[in-house]
Amino acid sequence: MTTLMSAGELETALRDLGAARYHNRHPFHRMLHGGKLNKRQVQAWALNRYCYQAHIPIKDASLIARIDDPDLRRQWRQRLVDHDGTQKGDGGIARWIALTDGLDLDRALVVSMRAALPATRFAVQAYVQFVREKPLLEAIASSLTELFSPNIISERVSGMLSHYDFITPETLAYFNARLDQAPRDADFALDYVKRHARTPEQQSAVIAALGFKCDVLWAQLDALHHAYVNPGLIPPGALGHDGVWP
Amino acid sequence: MTTLMSAGELETALRDLGAARYHNRHPFHRMLHGGKLNKRQVQAWALNRYCYQAHIPIKDASLIARIDDPDLRRQWRQRLVDHDGTQKGDGGIARWIALTDGLDLDRALVVSMRAALPATRFAVQAYVQFVREKPLLEAIASSLTELFSPNIISERVSGMLSHYDFITPETLAYFNARLDQAPRDADFALDYVKRHARTPEQQSAVIAALGFKCDVLWAQLDALHHAYVNPGLIPPGALGHDGVWP
Repeated sequence: MTTLMSAGELETALRDLGAARYHNRHPFHRMLHGGKLNKRQVQAWALNRYCYQAHIPIKDASLIARIDDPDLRRQWRQRLVDHDGTQKGDGGIARWIALTDGLDLDRALVVSMRAALPATRFAVQAYVQFVREKPLLEAIASSLTELFSPNIISERVSGMLSHYDFITPETLAYFNARLDQAPRDADFALDYVKRHARTPEQQSAVIAALGFKCDVLWAQLDALHHAYVNPGLIPPGALGHDGVWP
Repeated sequence: MTTLMSAGELETALRDLGAARYHNRHPFHRMLHGGKLNKRQVQAWALNRYCYQAHIPIKDASLIARIDDPDLRRQWRQRLVDHDGTQKGDGGIARWIALTDGLDLDRALVVSMRAALPATRFAVQAYVQFVREKPLLEAIASSLTELFSPNIISERVSGMLSHYDFITPETLAYFNARLDQAPRDADFALDYVKRHARTPEQQSAVIAALGFKCDVLWAQLDALHHAYVNPGLIPPGALGHDGVWP
Protein backbone atom coordinates (compact mmCIF):
# COMPACT_ATOMS: atom_id res chain seq x y z
CA MET A 1 0.00 0.00 0.00
CA THR A 2 1.94 3.06 -1.19
CA THR A 3 -0.69 5.69 -1.96
CA LEU A 4 -3.20 7.35 0.32
CA MET A 5 -6.79 6.24 -0.29
CA SER A 6 -9.80 8.46 0.19
CA ALA A 7 -12.01 7.52 3.14
CA GLY A 8 -14.49 6.04 0.66
CA GLU A 9 -11.80 3.95 -1.00
CA LEU A 10 -10.68 2.67 2.40
CA GLU A 11 -14.25 1.65 3.18
CA THR A 12 -14.49 -0.13 -0.16
CA ALA A 13 -11.23 -1.99 0.53
CA LEU A 14 -12.52 -3.06 3.94
CA ARG A 15 -15.84 -4.22 2.50
CA ASP A 16 -14.04 -6.13 -0.28
CA LEU A 17 -11.91 -7.90 2.29
CA GLY A 18 -14.99 -8.88 4.26
CA ALA A 19 -16.69 -10.15 1.11
CA ALA A 20 -13.70 -12.43 0.51
CA ARG A 21 -12.79 -13.52 4.02
CA TYR A 22 -15.68 -13.12 6.47
CA HIS A 23 -16.69 -16.44 7.97
CA ASN A 24 -20.11 -16.51 6.30
CA ARG A 25 -18.16 -18.11 3.42
CA HIS A 26 -16.99 -21.01 5.60
CA PRO A 27 -18.67 -24.37 4.83
CA PHE A 28 -19.42 -24.91 8.52
CA HIS A 29 -21.60 -21.81 8.56
CA ARG A 30 -23.35 -22.84 5.38
CA MET A 31 -24.07 -26.22 6.98
CA LEU A 32 -25.25 -24.57 10.22
CA HIS A 33 -27.69 -22.28 8.45
CA GLY A 34 -28.76 -24.86 5.90
CA GLY A 35 -29.85 -27.44 8.46
CA LYS A 36 -27.05 -29.86 7.57
CA LEU A 37 -25.72 -30.28 11.11
CA ASN A 38 -27.01 -32.62 13.76
CA LYS A 39 -27.74 -31.50 17.29
CA ARG A 40 -24.31 -32.48 18.61
CA GLN A 41 -22.60 -30.45 15.93
CA VAL A 42 -24.76 -27.44 16.81
CA GLN A 43 -23.92 -28.04 20.48
CA ALA A 44 -20.21 -28.04 19.65
CA TRP A 45 -20.62 -24.76 17.80
CA ALA A 46 -22.52 -23.10 20.67
CA LEU A 47 -20.16 -24.42 23.37
CA ASN A 48 -17.05 -23.28 21.51
CA ARG A 49 -18.45 -19.93 20.55
CA TYR A 50 -19.26 -19.30 24.19
CA CYS A 51 -15.49 -18.87 24.70
CA TYR A 52 -15.49 -16.16 22.09
CA GLN A 53 -18.56 -14.45 23.56
CA ALA A 54 -17.15 -14.63 27.08
CA HIS A 55 -13.99 -12.82 26.03
CA ILE A 56 -15.65 -9.97 24.14
CA PRO A 57 -16.15 -7.77 27.24
CA ILE A 58 -12.57 -8.56 28.32
CA LYS A 59 -11.41 -7.45 24.90
CA ASP A 60 -13.55 -4.31 25.06
CA ALA A 61 -12.42 -3.42 28.58
CA SER A 62 -8.80 -3.85 27.46
CA LEU A 63 -9.51 -1.42 24.65
CA ILE A 64 -11.26 1.11 26.89
CA ALA A 65 -8.28 0.92 29.25
CA ARG A 66 -6.06 2.21 26.45
CA ILE A 67 -8.19 5.22 25.48
CA ASP A 68 -7.38 8.69 26.79
CA ASP A 69 -10.51 10.43 25.48
CA PRO A 70 -13.52 10.22 27.85
CA ASP A 71 -15.96 10.57 24.92
CA LEU A 72 -14.47 7.63 23.11
CA ARG A 73 -14.31 5.57 26.32
CA ARG A 74 -17.96 6.32 27.02
CA GLN A 75 -18.96 5.35 23.50
CA TRP A 76 -17.07 2.05 23.71
CA ARG A 77 -18.49 1.34 27.18
CA GLN A 78 -21.88 0.60 25.62
CA ARG A 79 -20.36 -2.66 24.38
CA LEU A 80 -19.72 -3.73 27.96
CA VAL A 81 -23.34 -2.94 28.79
CA ASP A 82 -24.56 -4.93 25.79
CA HIS A 83 -22.54 -8.03 26.67
CA ASP A 84 -22.61 -7.99 30.46
CA GLY A 85 -26.07 -6.44 30.89
CA THR A 86 -27.36 -4.12 33.57
CA GLN A 87 -28.26 -6.89 36.01
CA LYS A 88 -27.60 -10.58 36.50
CA GLY A 89 -29.14 -12.69 33.75
CA ASP A 90 -29.15 -9.77 31.32
CA GLY A 91 -26.86 -9.06 28.37
CA GLY A 92 -25.31 -10.91 25.47
CA ILE A 93 -23.41 -13.51 27.47
CA ALA A 94 -26.55 -14.43 29.42
CA ARG A 95 -28.42 -14.69 26.11
CA TRP A 96 -25.69 -16.97 24.78
CA ILE A 97 -26.15 -19.19 27.82
CA ALA A 98 -29.88 -19.27 27.05
CA LEU A 99 -28.86 -20.74 23.70
CA THR A 100 -26.57 -23.39 25.21
CA ASP A 101 -29.28 -24.16 27.81
CA GLY A 102 -31.77 -24.57 24.99
CA LEU A 103 -29.38 -27.01 23.33
CA ASP A 104 -29.34 -29.09 26.54
CA LEU A 105 -25.70 -28.34 27.27
CA ASP A 106 -24.64 -28.44 30.89
CA ARG A 107 -24.24 -24.84 31.94
CA ALA A 108 -21.28 -25.49 34.25
CA LEU A 109 -19.46 -27.29 31.43
CA VAL A 110 -20.09 -24.43 29.02
CA VAL A 111 -18.98 -21.74 31.46
CA SER A 112 -15.88 -23.71 32.49
CA MET A 113 -14.76 -23.66 28.83
CA ARG A 114 -12.81 -26.85 29.50
CA ALA A 115 -14.53 -28.88 26.78
CA ALA A 116 -13.85 -26.25 24.15
CA LEU A 117 -11.35 -26.92 21.39
CA PRO A 118 -7.83 -25.69 22.16
CA ALA A 119 -7.86 -23.99 18.76
CA THR A 120 -10.88 -21.95 19.88
CA ARG A 121 -9.07 -20.81 23.01
CA PHE A 122 -5.93 -19.93 21.05
CA ALA A 123 -7.87 -17.88 18.48
CA VAL A 124 -9.82 -16.01 21.15
CA GLN A 125 -6.65 -15.32 23.11
CA ALA A 126 -4.97 -14.00 19.97
CA TYR A 127 -7.85 -11.56 19.53
CA VAL A 128 -7.64 -10.27 23.11
CA GLN A 129 -3.87 -9.97 22.80
CA PHE A 130 -4.16 -8.08 19.52
CA VAL A 131 -6.47 -5.50 21.11
CA ARG A 132 -4.14 -5.17 24.10
CA GLU A 133 -0.92 -4.72 22.17
CA LYS A 134 -1.54 -3.20 18.75
CA PRO A 135 -1.95 0.54 18.14
CA LEU A 136 -5.40 1.77 19.17
CA LEU A 137 -6.40 2.41 15.56
CA GLU A 138 -5.75 -1.24 14.68
CA ALA A 139 -7.43 -2.48 17.85
CA ILE A 140 -10.57 -0.57 16.88
CA ALA A 141 -10.33 -1.72 13.27
CA SER A 142 -10.29 -5.36 14.40
CA SER A 143 -13.93 -4.91 15.51
CA LEU A 144 -15.02 -4.16 11.95
CA THR A 145 -16.19 -7.69 11.21
CA GLU A 146 -19.45 -6.40 12.70
CA LEU A 147 -19.96 -4.61 9.38
CA PHE A 148 -20.78 -7.99 7.90
CA SER A 149 -22.69 -9.61 10.74
CA PRO A 150 -26.29 -8.40 10.12
CA ASN A 151 -26.59 -10.48 6.94
CA ILE A 152 -25.18 -13.60 8.53
CA ILE A 153 -27.42 -13.17 11.58
CA SER A 154 -30.59 -12.88 9.50
CA GLU A 155 -29.61 -15.99 7.53
CA ARG A 156 -28.73 -17.81 10.71
CA VAL A 157 -31.93 -17.08 12.60
CA SER A 158 -34.27 -17.93 9.75
CA GLY A 159 -32.22 -20.95 8.67
CA MET A 160 -31.85 -22.43 12.14
CA LEU A 161 -35.51 -21.90 13.04
CA SER A 162 -36.73 -23.55 9.87
CA HIS A 163 -34.31 -26.48 9.88
CA TYR A 164 -33.81 -27.55 13.49
CA ASP A 165 -36.66 -28.66 15.72
CA PHE A 166 -34.39 -28.23 18.78
CA ILE A 167 -34.05 -24.47 18.11
CA THR A 168 -36.69 -21.98 19.30
CA PRO A 169 -37.00 -18.19 18.90
CA GLU A 170 -36.22 -17.82 22.62
CA THR A 171 -32.89 -19.61 22.33
CA LEU A 172 -31.88 -17.28 19.49
CA ALA A 173 -32.59 -14.08 21.46
CA TYR A 174 -28.87 -13.23 21.37
CA PHE A 175 -28.97 -12.66 17.66
CA ASN A 176 -32.06 -10.47 17.68
CA ALA A 177 -30.33 -8.07 20.06
CA ARG A 178 -27.22 -8.05 17.89
CA LEU A 179 -29.23 -7.03 14.83
CA ASP A 180 -29.52 -3.55 16.34
CA GLN A 181 -26.26 -3.43 18.28
CA ALA A 182 -23.83 -4.61 15.61
CA PRO A 183 -24.65 -2.00 12.93
CA ARG A 184 -24.48 0.82 15.51
CA ASP A 185 -21.07 -0.41 16.73
CA ALA A 186 -19.77 -1.09 13.24
CA ASP A 187 -20.83 2.32 11.91
CA PHE A 188 -19.02 4.02 14.77
CA ALA A 189 -15.82 2.00 14.32
CA LEU A 190 -15.87 2.45 10.55
CA ASP A 191 -16.26 6.19 10.92
CA TYR A 192 -13.40 6.19 13.44
CA VAL A 193 -10.93 4.37 11.21
CA LYS A 194 -11.91 6.44 8.17
CA ARG A 195 -11.13 9.62 10.11
CA HIS A 196 -7.99 8.39 11.89
CA ALA A 197 -6.19 6.33 9.26
CA ARG A 198 -4.39 9.25 7.70
CA THR A 199 -1.32 7.66 6.11
CA PRO A 200 -1.01 4.80 3.62
CA GLU A 201 0.71 2.77 6.36
CA GLN A 202 -2.18 3.34 8.77
CA GLN A 203 -4.72 2.44 6.11
CA SER A 204 -2.79 -0.68 5.32
CA ALA A 205 -2.62 -1.57 9.02
CA VAL A 206 -6.38 -1.06 9.38
CA ILE A 207 -7.06 -3.44 6.50
CA ALA A 208 -4.61 -5.97 7.97
CA ALA A 209 -6.38 -5.71 11.34
CA LEU A 210 -9.68 -6.63 9.73
CA GLY A 211 -7.93 -9.52 7.94
CA PHE A 212 -6.53 -10.71 11.25
CA LYS A 213 -10.00 -10.65 12.79
CA CYS A 214 -11.44 -12.58 9.84
CA ASP A 215 -8.71 -15.18 10.52
CA VAL A 216 -9.77 -15.36 14.18
CA LEU A 217 -13.36 -16.14 13.20
CA TRP A 218 -12.43 -18.46 10.33
CA ALA A 219 -9.99 -20.49 12.44
CA GLN A 220 -12.74 -21.19 14.96
CA LEU A 221 -14.97 -22.67 12.26
CA ASP A 222 -12.03 -24.60 10.80
CA ALA A 223 -11.48 -26.21 14.17
CA LEU A 224 -15.18 -27.09 14.53
CA HIS A 225 -15.31 -28.49 11.02
CA HIS A 226 -12.16 -30.55 11.56
CA ALA A 227 -13.31 -31.92 14.90
CA TYR A 228 -17.02 -32.40 14.39
CA VAL A 229 -17.73 -32.67 10.66
CA ASN A 230 -14.89 -33.93 8.56
CA PRO A 231 -12.65 -35.77 9.38
CA GLY A 232 -14.20 -35.74 12.85
CA LEU A 233 -10.90 -35.62 14.70
CA ILE A 234 -11.87 -34.36 18.14
CA PRO A 235 -8.73 -33.38 20.10
CA PRO A 236 -8.05 -34.93 23.52
CA GLY A 237 -10.05 -33.21 26.26
CA ALA A 238 -12.58 -31.52 23.97
CA LEU A 239 -16.34 -32.09 23.88
CA GLY A 240 -16.99 -35.55 22.48
CA HIS A 241 -13.42 -36.93 22.52
CA ASP A 242 -13.48 -40.70 22.99
CA GLY A 243 -17.27 -40.56 22.70
CA VAL A 244 -17.67 -38.57 25.91
CA TRP A 245 -20.67 -36.29 25.33
CA PRO A 246 -22.71 -34.59 28.05
CA MET B 1 -5.75 -33.36 42.69
CA THR B 2 -6.05 -33.34 46.48
CA THR B 3 -3.07 -35.36 47.75
CA LEU B 4 0.61 -34.72 47.42
CA MET B 5 2.36 -37.11 45.06
CA SER B 6 5.92 -38.26 45.44
CA ALA B 7 8.34 -36.91 42.84
CA GLY B 8 8.28 -40.30 41.17
CA GLU B 9 4.48 -40.34 41.05
CA LEU B 10 4.49 -36.86 39.51
CA GLU B 11 6.91 -38.06 36.83
CA THR B 12 4.66 -41.04 36.12
CA ALA B 13 1.62 -38.75 35.82
CA LEU B 14 3.50 -36.52 33.38
CA ARG B 15 4.66 -39.48 31.30
CA ASP B 16 1.13 -40.91 31.25
CA LEU B 17 -0.21 -37.61 30.00
CA GLY B 18 2.38 -37.54 27.25
CA ALA B 19 1.54 -41.11 26.27
CA ALA B 20 -2.10 -40.06 25.82
CA ARG B 21 -1.78 -36.60 24.34
CA TYR B 22 1.62 -36.02 22.70
CA HIS B 23 1.26 -35.26 19.00
CA ASN B 24 2.97 -38.47 17.88
CA ARG B 25 -0.57 -39.90 18.19
CA HIS B 26 -1.97 -37.45 15.63
CA PRO B 27 -2.88 -38.96 12.25
CA PHE B 28 -0.96 -36.23 10.42
CA HIS B 29 2.25 -37.33 12.09
CA ARG B 30 1.57 -40.95 11.29
CA MET B 31 1.04 -39.96 7.66
CA LEU B 32 4.19 -37.82 7.65
CA HIS B 33 6.38 -40.60 8.98
CA GLY B 34 4.67 -43.34 7.01
CA GLY B 35 5.26 -41.73 3.63
CA LYS B 36 1.56 -41.03 3.08
CA LEU B 37 1.96 -37.32 2.33
CA ASN B 38 2.83 -35.72 -0.96
CA LYS B 39 5.52 -33.10 -1.30
CA ARG B 40 3.10 -30.18 -0.98
CA GLN B 41 1.74 -31.57 2.25
CA VAL B 42 5.28 -31.94 3.61
CA GLN B 43 5.99 -28.38 2.47
CA ALA B 44 2.93 -27.15 4.35
CA TRP B 45 4.12 -28.95 7.48
CA ALA B 46 7.64 -27.49 7.25
CA LEU B 47 6.45 -23.96 6.46
CA ASN B 48 3.97 -23.91 9.32
CA ARG B 49 6.32 -25.47 11.82
CA TYR B 50 8.85 -22.78 10.96
CA CYS B 51 6.56 -20.37 12.87
CA TYR B 52 6.83 -22.59 15.91
CA GLN B 53 10.62 -22.94 15.59
CA ALA B 54 11.06 -19.21 15.09
CA HIS B 55 9.25 -18.45 18.34
CA ILE B 56 11.11 -20.92 20.54
CA PRO B 57 14.00 -18.53 21.34
CA ILE B 58 11.47 -15.75 21.96
CA LYS B 59 9.69 -18.06 24.37
CA ASP B 60 12.97 -19.03 26.05
CA ALA B 61 14.18 -15.45 26.34
CA SER B 62 10.82 -14.52 27.88
CA LEU B 63 11.35 -17.28 30.41
CA ILE B 64 14.95 -16.26 31.17
CA ALA B 65 13.73 -12.69 31.69
CA ARG B 66 11.54 -13.92 34.55
CA ILE B 67 14.25 -15.87 36.43
CA ASP B 68 16.06 -14.31 39.39
CA ASP B 69 18.67 -17.07 39.83
CA PRO B 70 21.79 -16.60 37.64
CA ASP B 71 22.47 -20.36 37.67
CA LEU B 72 19.05 -21.15 36.33
CA ARG B 73 19.25 -18.33 33.75
CA ARG B 74 22.63 -19.65 32.59
CA GLN B 75 21.27 -23.17 32.29
CA TRP B 76 18.27 -22.02 30.26
CA ARG B 77 20.48 -19.80 28.07
CA GLN B 78 21.84 -22.89 26.35
CA ARG B 79 18.48 -23.18 24.59
CA LEU B 80 19.04 -19.78 22.98
CA VAL B 81 22.44 -20.97 21.80
CA ASP B 82 20.95 -24.16 20.40
CA HIS B 83 18.26 -22.38 18.41
CA ASP B 84 20.00 -19.16 17.36
CA GLY B 85 23.53 -20.61 17.03
CA THR B 86 26.87 -19.00 17.69
CA GLN B 87 27.14 -17.39 14.28
CA LYS B 88 24.96 -16.62 11.28
CA GLY B 89 23.71 -19.78 9.57
CA ASP B 90 24.20 -21.85 12.69
CA GLY B 91 21.60 -23.18 15.15
CA GLY B 92 18.21 -24.84 15.06
CA ILE B 93 16.36 -22.14 13.14
CA ALA B 94 19.02 -22.13 10.41
CA ARG B 95 18.76 -25.93 10.28
CA TRP B 96 14.99 -25.65 9.92
CA ILE B 97 15.52 -23.29 6.98
CA ALA B 98 17.85 -25.90 5.46
CA LEU B 99 14.85 -28.22 5.59
CA THR B 100 12.46 -25.74 3.94
CA ASP B 101 15.17 -24.94 1.35
CA GLY B 102 15.51 -28.66 0.68
CA LEU B 103 11.77 -28.82 0.13
CA ASP B 104 12.08 -26.06 -2.51
CA LEU B 105 10.15 -23.53 -0.46
CA ASP B 106 10.94 -19.89 -1.06
CA ARG B 107 13.01 -18.78 1.90
CA ALA B 108 11.55 -15.27 2.04
CA LEU B 109 8.03 -16.72 2.08
CA VAL B 110 8.91 -19.11 4.91
CA VAL B 111 10.61 -16.43 7.02
CA SER B 112 7.78 -13.95 6.44
CA MET B 113 5.36 -16.48 7.99
CA ARG B 114 2.57 -14.88 5.97
CA ALA B 115 1.54 -18.11 4.22
CA ALA B 116 1.27 -20.01 7.49
CA LEU B 117 -2.12 -21.03 8.79
CA PRO B 118 -3.70 -18.53 11.20
CA ALA B 119 -4.29 -21.44 13.59
CA THR B 120 -0.53 -22.07 13.65
CA ARG B 121 0.14 -18.47 14.58
CA PHE B 122 -2.55 -18.49 17.26
CA ALA B 123 -1.21 -21.69 18.85
CA VAL B 124 2.38 -20.43 18.84
CA GLN B 125 1.32 -17.10 20.30
CA ALA B 126 -0.62 -18.89 23.04
CA TYR B 127 2.57 -20.77 23.95
CA VAL B 128 4.68 -17.61 24.16
CA GLN B 129 1.96 -15.91 26.18
CA PHE B 130 1.72 -18.85 28.57
CA VAL B 131 5.45 -18.70 29.29
CA ARG B 132 5.27 -14.94 29.78
CA GLU B 133 2.30 -14.90 32.14
CA LYS B 134 2.04 -18.16 34.08
CA PRO B 135 4.01 -18.87 37.26
CA LEU B 136 7.62 -19.80 36.48
CA LEU B 137 7.08 -23.40 37.57
CA GLU B 138 4.31 -23.82 34.99
CA ALA B 139 6.28 -21.99 32.33
CA ILE B 140 9.14 -24.45 32.81
CA ALA B 141 6.76 -27.41 32.92
CA SER B 142 5.33 -26.43 29.54
CA SER B 143 8.68 -27.39 27.99
CA LEU B 144 8.30 -30.99 29.12
CA THR B 145 6.96 -32.23 25.79
CA GLU B 146 10.64 -32.67 25.02
CA LEU B 147 10.50 -35.77 27.23
CA PHE B 148 8.65 -37.45 24.39
CA SER B 149 10.44 -36.03 21.38
CA PRO B 150 13.41 -38.43 20.97
CA ASN B 151 11.13 -41.30 19.96
CA ILE B 152 9.18 -39.21 17.48
CA ILE B 153 12.38 -37.78 16.01
CA SER B 154 13.89 -41.22 15.41
CA GLU B 155 10.68 -42.38 13.74
CA ARG B 156 10.50 -39.21 11.71
CA VAL B 157 14.05 -39.28 10.38
CA SER B 158 14.03 -42.94 9.40
CA GLY B 159 10.46 -42.78 8.05
CA MET B 160 10.96 -39.64 5.99
CA LEU B 161 14.31 -40.78 4.56
CA SER B 162 12.91 -44.12 3.48
CA HIS B 163 9.63 -42.84 2.05
CA TYR B 164 10.31 -39.49 0.39
CA ASP B 165 12.78 -39.07 -2.46
CA PHE B 166 12.73 -35.30 -1.88
CA ILE B 167 14.16 -35.69 1.63
CA THR B 168 17.91 -36.06 2.24
CA PRO B 169 19.93 -36.56 5.44
CA GLU B 170 21.23 -32.99 5.08
CA THR B 171 17.75 -31.48 5.13
CA LEU B 172 16.97 -33.37 8.34
CA ALA B 173 20.04 -32.07 10.20
CA TYR B 174 17.76 -30.19 12.60
CA PHE B 175 16.48 -33.42 14.08
CA ASN B 176 19.89 -35.01 14.55
CA ALA B 177 20.95 -32.08 16.71
CA ARG B 178 17.74 -32.30 18.72
CA LEU B 179 18.37 -35.95 19.52
CA ASP B 180 21.09 -34.83 21.94
CA GLN B 181 19.64 -31.46 22.98
CA ALA B 182 16.06 -32.46 23.78
CA PRO B 183 16.84 -35.16 26.38
CA ARG B 184 19.34 -32.88 28.14
CA ASP B 185 16.77 -30.06 28.28
CA ALA B 186 13.92 -32.35 29.25
CA ASP B 187 15.89 -34.03 32.03
CA PHE B 188 16.74 -30.65 33.51
CA ALA B 189 13.16 -29.37 33.35
CA LEU B 190 11.77 -32.61 34.74
CA ASP B 191 14.18 -32.50 37.66
CA TYR B 192 13.23 -28.86 38.25
CA VAL B 193 9.49 -29.46 38.41
CA LYS B 194 9.94 -32.58 40.57
CA ARG B 195 11.90 -30.51 43.10
CA HIS B 196 9.75 -27.35 42.96
CA ALA B 197 6.18 -28.67 42.74
CA ARG B 198 5.75 -29.05 46.48
CA THR B 199 1.98 -28.80 46.92
CA PRO B 200 -0.86 -30.76 45.32
CA GLU B 201 -1.96 -27.53 43.60
CA GLN B 202 1.50 -26.98 42.12
CA GLN B 203 1.71 -30.59 40.96
CA SER B 204 -1.70 -30.26 39.37
CA ALA B 205 -0.65 -27.02 37.67
CA VAL B 206 2.51 -28.68 36.33
CA ILE B 207 0.47 -31.47 34.80
CA ALA B 208 -1.97 -28.94 33.33
CA ALA B 209 0.94 -27.00 31.84
CA LEU B 210 2.14 -30.11 30.02
CA GLY B 211 -1.44 -30.71 28.85
CA PHE B 212 -1.61 -27.15 27.55
CA LYS B 213 1.61 -27.66 25.62
CA CYS B 214 0.32 -30.92 24.14
CA ASP B 215 -2.73 -28.93 22.96
CA VAL B 216 -0.42 -26.35 21.33
CA LEU B 217 1.34 -29.07 19.33
CA TRP B 218 -1.84 -31.03 18.56
CA ALA B 219 -3.73 -27.94 17.34
CA GLN B 220 -0.97 -27.24 14.83
CA LEU B 221 -1.35 -30.71 13.31
CA ASP B 222 -5.14 -30.42 13.37
CA ALA B 223 -4.88 -27.25 11.33
CA LEU B 224 -2.50 -28.88 8.84
CA HIS B 225 -4.72 -31.94 8.54
CA HIS B 226 -7.83 -29.83 8.05
CA ALA B 227 -6.23 -27.59 5.45
CA TYR B 228 -4.03 -29.98 3.52
CA VAL B 229 -5.31 -33.51 4.00
CA ASN B 230 -8.97 -33.80 4.76
CA PRO B 231 -11.21 -31.93 3.96
CA GLY B 232 -8.52 -29.81 2.36
CA LEU B 233 -10.02 -26.50 3.43
CA ILE B 234 -7.11 -24.07 3.12
CA PRO B 235 -8.00 -20.76 4.83
CA PRO B 236 -7.78 -17.50 2.86
CA GLY B 237 -4.21 -16.23 2.68
CA ALA B 238 -2.50 -19.48 3.64
CA LEU B 239 -0.14 -21.54 1.49
CA GLY B 240 -2.10 -23.08 -1.38
CA HIS B 241 -5.38 -21.16 -0.96
CA ASP B 242 -7.13 -20.80 -4.34
CA GLY B 243 -4.43 -23.05 -5.81
CA VAL B 244 -1.64 -20.52 -5.21
CA TRP B 245 1.47 -22.55 -4.44
CA PRO B 246 5.03 -21.28 -4.65
